[in-house]
Amino acid sequence: MAAEIVNPRSESGTEGAQEEPFDPAFALHRGGKMAISATVPLRDRDDLSLAYTPGVAKVCTAIAEQPELVHDYTWKSQVVAVVTDGTAVLGLGDIGPEASLPVMEGKAILFKQFGGVDAVPIALATTDADEIVETVVRLAPSFGGVNLEDISAPRCFEIERKLQERLDIPVFHDDQHGTAVVTLAALRNAAKLTGRTLGDLRGVISGAGAAGVAIAKFLLQAGLGDVAVADRKGIVSADREDLTPVKRELAEITNKAGLTGSLETALAGADVFIGVSGGTVPEAAVASMAPNAFVFAMANPNPEVHPDVAHKYAAVVATGRSDYPNQINNVLAFPGIFAGALQVRASRITEGMKIAAADAIADVVADELSAACVIPSPFDERVAPAVAAAVAAAARAEGVARR
Amino acid sequence: MAAEIVNPRSESGTEGAQEEPFDPAFALHRGGKMAISATVPLRDRDDLSLAYTPGVAKVCTAIAEQPELVHDYTWKSQVVAVVTDGTAVLGLGDIGPEASLPVMEGKAILFKQFGGVDAVPIALATTDADEIVETVVRLAPSFGGVNLEDISAPRCFEIERKLQERLDIPVFHDDQHGTAVVTLAALRNAAKLTGRTLGDLRGVISGAGAAGVAIAKFLLQAGLGDVAVADRKGIVSADREDLTPVKRELAEITNKAGLTGSLETALAGADVFIGVSGGTVPEAAVASMAPNAFVFAMANPNPEVHPDVAHKYAAVVATGRSDYPNQINNVLAFPGIFAGALQVRASRITEGMKIAAADAIADVVADELSAACVIPSPFDERVAPAVAAAVAAAARAEGVARR
Repeated sequence: MAAEIVNPRSESGTEGAQEEPFDPAFALHRGGKMAISATVPLRDRDDLSLAYTPGVAKVCTAIAEQPELVHDYTWKSQVVAVVTDGTAVLGLGDIGPEASLPVMEGKAILFKQFGGVDAVPIALATTDADEIVETVVRLAPSFGGVNLEDISAPRCFEIERKLQERLDIPVFHDDQHGTAVVTLAALRNAAKLTGRTLGDLRGVISGAGAAGVAIAKFLLQAGLGDVAVADRKGIVSADREDLTPVKRELAEITNKAGLTGSLETALAGADVFIGVSGGTVPEAAVASMAPNAFVFAMANPNPEVHPDVAHKYAAVVATGRSDYPNQINNVLAFPGIFAGALQVRASRITEGMKIAAADAIADVVADELSAACVIPSPFDERVAPAVAAAVAAAARAEGVARR
Repeated sequence: MAAEIVNPRSESGTEGAQEEPFDPAFALHRGGKMAISATVPLRDRDDLSLAYTPGVAKVCTAIAEQPELVHDYTWKSQVVAVVTDGTAVLGLGDIGPEASLPVMEGKAILFKQFGGVDAVPIALATTDADEIVETVVRLAPSFGGVNLEDISAPRCFEIERKLQERLDIPVFHDDQHGTAVVTLAALRNAAKLTGRTLGDLRGVISGAGAAGVAIAKFLLQAGLGDVAVADRKGIVSADREDLTPVKRELAEITNKAGLTGSLETALAGADVFIGVSGGTVPEAAVASMAPNAFVFAMANPNPEVHPDVAHKYAAVVATGRSDYPNQINNVLAFPGIFAGALQVRASRITEGMKIAAADAIADVVADELSAACVIPSPFDERVAPAVAAAVAAAARAEGVARR
């Protein structure tokens, strides 16, 4: 009966069973990357009678009578569900819930390490948007927040919207908003460094998936002068007849310049390039951008514009890679955003809270600002506390805090 | 906007806000009883590139190609979902999912403390049996097992059956089977102590809820001579017209003696009383039992027969209380049962695995056997490893192990 455990390093898939793979990533992942621990003692009968029966009964009764006490006397307000359906995992695409688990565990431990927030991977065996919504609504009593992760567009938009309508805890699709927040932080500092305001800038986004759509909307809300979004068929513009509802909405609010045609067309004279698509942008198109341009080429592992090429034309260059300066990394945002939201028991994460988070990230490097430092390192320990404090204050100011 | 946090100790419910309650159970529960931790380092860029991107991608790809690798490279096979709908919490009844969370967290940390098994509380915002089944099926990719908890009868029977039909991971309703396993362990040792076999004994169970039904079926499977089950209306017997489907099935397999009438009628001449009901059994009925009777009065905090009364007539007395000898406590069973099942990646928990667990619990005190010691203490550290080993071996013998 026993299924043979196969060594993933072995090409045949049958040699070397039971042997620890040599690859350090496999070795590190053996047994998973996380564990539960008790935060109260359970050594003897007295301990058990407080943490479990009979002592626990009076705590349950108190919560039944006064529901908001669940936040005080359980871990609910410290724990986030990291929810995926495994349809858009990293650059790997639709690999299913089980195969997505290593990423979800990684996300969960980043929550803990950087934000002090407990998080539980929940990879769902359904890709139906309504079923995902129903499932998460039913899970919600156990969690203080929901981080949606690696759910493909356009379902991710609908799922997030419907969940936030039905739940009174924050729902946050990190692939959208985390990326948008960190992009805004980098953009603010790049503008400051070159003596401009967001309103002075025209941007071009390559990619109209979850990240591209969210970045476009968020940067406009934050005051960007104009932005055009390009998908594989070119600039998303009102004259196109092949647009999904999400892209049709995008066509209405973006591209004030009324551009049509290819990504390259849009880049001519543009101030900002934001790549969240993969693919490669020709050097000539980068060269056609305005003076003092910013190139944020975030595709991983291969940026849309190689940093060496980008530096020939741009004033500020950022990527998604850890081995170049200015890494646009979501870990700068989500741990602090949830830490701040949970701290004040926010019912949702508003645009104002996200803008406060971006400003806080940008401000961390205010005194060190340079072309090679428009955004802090992911390991900068000042970031998460600053983001949490800013998000908590914004939640209070916007009336979504419950304490 | 901020909801005032109210001190549960305060009778008015408004005095003393923000103040730590004096009651030690509330003090202990503040902030919850559990936390997540990373089991791998996340100190620098190199760590992050193994535990998260880009290193994690090859682990995801390997699982996508060879699904069983999810057990090796994630925490799936170490983590159990503790699932409830909050309808039958302790003796408190239907208090809802949020109010049940302190019990579910308690259960989760008992899993860890006693069995080394990670567990996550999942309290669901639905009491519909089909919705609970669908929800848990969708969650299943993330977990190695499902422990159902405090779900009211008769829905609990249907939910467990349907889930186990659809899932290839163990589904175990502890209120049923955990209680049944520990009861069998105590009964085996009591029989041994008084020189009898299970086949010699006629039992009476007070209570036809989850625990009563499961105990009756399980003891018969283990070889008990006969058993009658009584609910509030008396002995469950074929002539009754008010029986639910579950009790009708019970009437067919129990009560070979064909008894009708009250619990007291059934107790006359009976060898074993098992109380899982609450309520009180009159002393005269206990006095009418056979010589060398066993009284297992498990209601908490008030046993159906007070131990002082039981000792006047019975050879062996057990309760659910920690302050008397022979405590029938589920913590003797579920941590080791899941630890053993997860260790061999069992697809289900069979009757044979449960009987092996009961035997292992009983055997731990084989050399110390006495009327005051037919069952080990919940803190006996020999129990969980012995149960896990016995359950793993039984899973292999029964062909449900996958390694």
